Amino acid sequence: MYDFAADSADCARAVEARLSDLLTEPALSGPGPAAGRLVAAMRHGSLEGGKRLRPLLVRQAAAIFSVPPAAALQAGLAVEMVHCYSLVHDDLPAMDDDDLRRGRPTVHKAFDEATAILAGDGLLTHAFALLAHPATHPDPAVRIALVAELAAGSGAGGMAGGQMRDIEGETGGFSEDDIASMQAMKTGALIRAAVRMGALLGGAEPRPLSALTAYAEAAGRAYQLADDILDVTATSDAMGKATGKDAGMGKQTFVARVGVEAARQALTAVVTEAVGYLRTFGPRADGLRATARYFASREN
Amino acid sequence: MYDFAADSADCARAVEARLSDLLTEPALSGPGPAAGRLVAAMRHGSLEGGKRLRPLLVRQAAAIFSVPPAAALQAGLAVEMVHCYSLVHDDLPAMDDDDLRRGRPTVHKAFDEATAILAGDGLLTHAFALLAHPATHPDPAVRIALVAELAAGSGAGGMAGGQMRDIEGETGGFSEDDIASMQAMKTGALIRAAVRMGALLGGAEPRPLSALTAYAEAAGRAYQLADDILDVTATSDAMGKATGKDAGMGKQTFVARVGVEAARQALTAVVTEAVGYLRTFGPRADGLRATARYFASREN
Repeated sequence: MYDFAADSADCARAVEARLSDLLTEPALSGPGPAAGRLVAAMRHGSLEGGKRLRPLLVRQAAAIFSVPPAAALQAGLAVEMVHCYSLVHDDLPAMDDDDLRRGRPTVHKAFDEATAILAGDGLLTHAFALLAHPATHPDPAVRIALVAELAAGSGAGGMAGGQMRDIEGETGGFSEDDIASMQAMKTGALIRAAVRMGALLGGAEPRPLSALTAYAEAAGRAYQLADDILDVTATSDAMGKATGKDAGMGKQTFVARVGVEAARQALTAVVTEAVGYLRTFGPRADGLRATARYFASREN
Repeated sequence: MYDFAADSADCARAVEARLSDLLTEPALSGPGPAAGRLVAAMRHGSLEGGKRLRPLLVRQAAAIFSVPPAAALQAGLAVEMVHCYSLVHDDLPAMDDDDLRRGRPTVHKAFDEATAILAGDGLLTHAFALLAHPATHPDPAVRIALVAELAAGSGAGGMAGGQMRDIEGETGGFSEDDIASMQAMKTGALIRAAVRMGALLGGAEPRPLSALTAYAEAAGRAYQLADDILDVTATSDAMGKATGKDAGMGKQTFVARVGVEAARQALTAVVTEAVGYLRTFGPRADGLRATARYFASREN
């Protein structure tokens, strides 16, 4: 019987411990010694906090192909670093201008803007360094497939492109389809990459890979929908960041259009859809099933 | 007889043409369509300008191992995208706050700050996507070695770390050794990566790889020294950017300490040192020899 609370806590502990080992001056040295202030800012932007859902998805997708959790960790760390870099940059004054993240000052508040820009750049760069390392997977062909997957999920046709569309959408004129497409890129693309990277670690054939991709896309929609509902219903304390912000900035979310109750029904439907794509995988996919359901029930 | 002017012009043309093909909405699509404004900003930050010295170094190092120029192009484009991303971010108001780059408005001036941050992120991300593609090299083990090399050269112990130290150094207290070490990272690390990536494309053994690394480190010092001398002696028109800026901001350059004439002598010495490391390679290294000499003679 799969235990979501235990598995996700175990994953979060492993991510925290390994990130802390990897984000040190010796581990980040290159042709020269790593800059201390930059390492400190990269740590601030990625340690102590976060639910580490993306590494969990990598682990859970890999588990379908009998890849043990330890062998899925490093690829998960790379996805998490990309997620953290995106938060550091999104929080900047020129972007969402947030002072608080996970209940602590954002990187540009704790350090300064220049350092936060460089810390994001450093986390993004190091994600690819991690994937290139043999500890990620012994086969270089698998590692290069992971690099391609992560780059596609986070670039101009993925997360960064979604963030660009989100900024453009603030000026209004977005249809419901535009919102869905923007969110699929901004949040969904990295969730999709995480699931696919887990499958690639396990040597997934094209058919299971495409079922898992469909799962990931539905799970990503569920995640975003839950986030939008929480932005309306949760308190700032529970979320560890400012809430009510999307509505306050006039952001065009689906929830704003249809109301909280209809959004909750849509969330249940999309979780059911996500779980449906896992039909052929049996109990090894219980982790991914539990995570999709967790997306619908989370309170922060 | 190697013709530097012809080879560098040919390389610059090839880089410009291929970058223009690669930085389009269809080519940058991922799980979703690439965001048009982001693609436009990525193009603004990387097309029409630049001497394309890093792709030239990749090509010239690869030539030592008989790799034809066309087969060295894609790896060169990846290094160039990383170079361009660093310029886009360095020009931001929170960093060097430059309005002009290569005689045109910088990305945050032509677009806005948020778009410039995302454009830099997009270029960095896409550099790794390019390296992951089979067009870079048929062997995935070589491609993953290139990813590792580029990430090391541009991360916290490379270019980004150097930029962090440079910002810290503006507050003073840097010794000559500190300046040299900062510059080796900020400018030198990516030049080093370019040369090593060319060698890796050619399957270089450890001994030639380390001779080429020594060349690249000396050539990087020459490049930076020439840049610092030009900052003092050249006009803003010739450089296509603001000059006299380092001295104006109290940046601690070697030139400021020893004077222009002594810096010119040091430049000649370091070029001689760089060329010395190429002794064993014969005429196939004429390209790298010419580039090191060009560094000492360039006027913009």
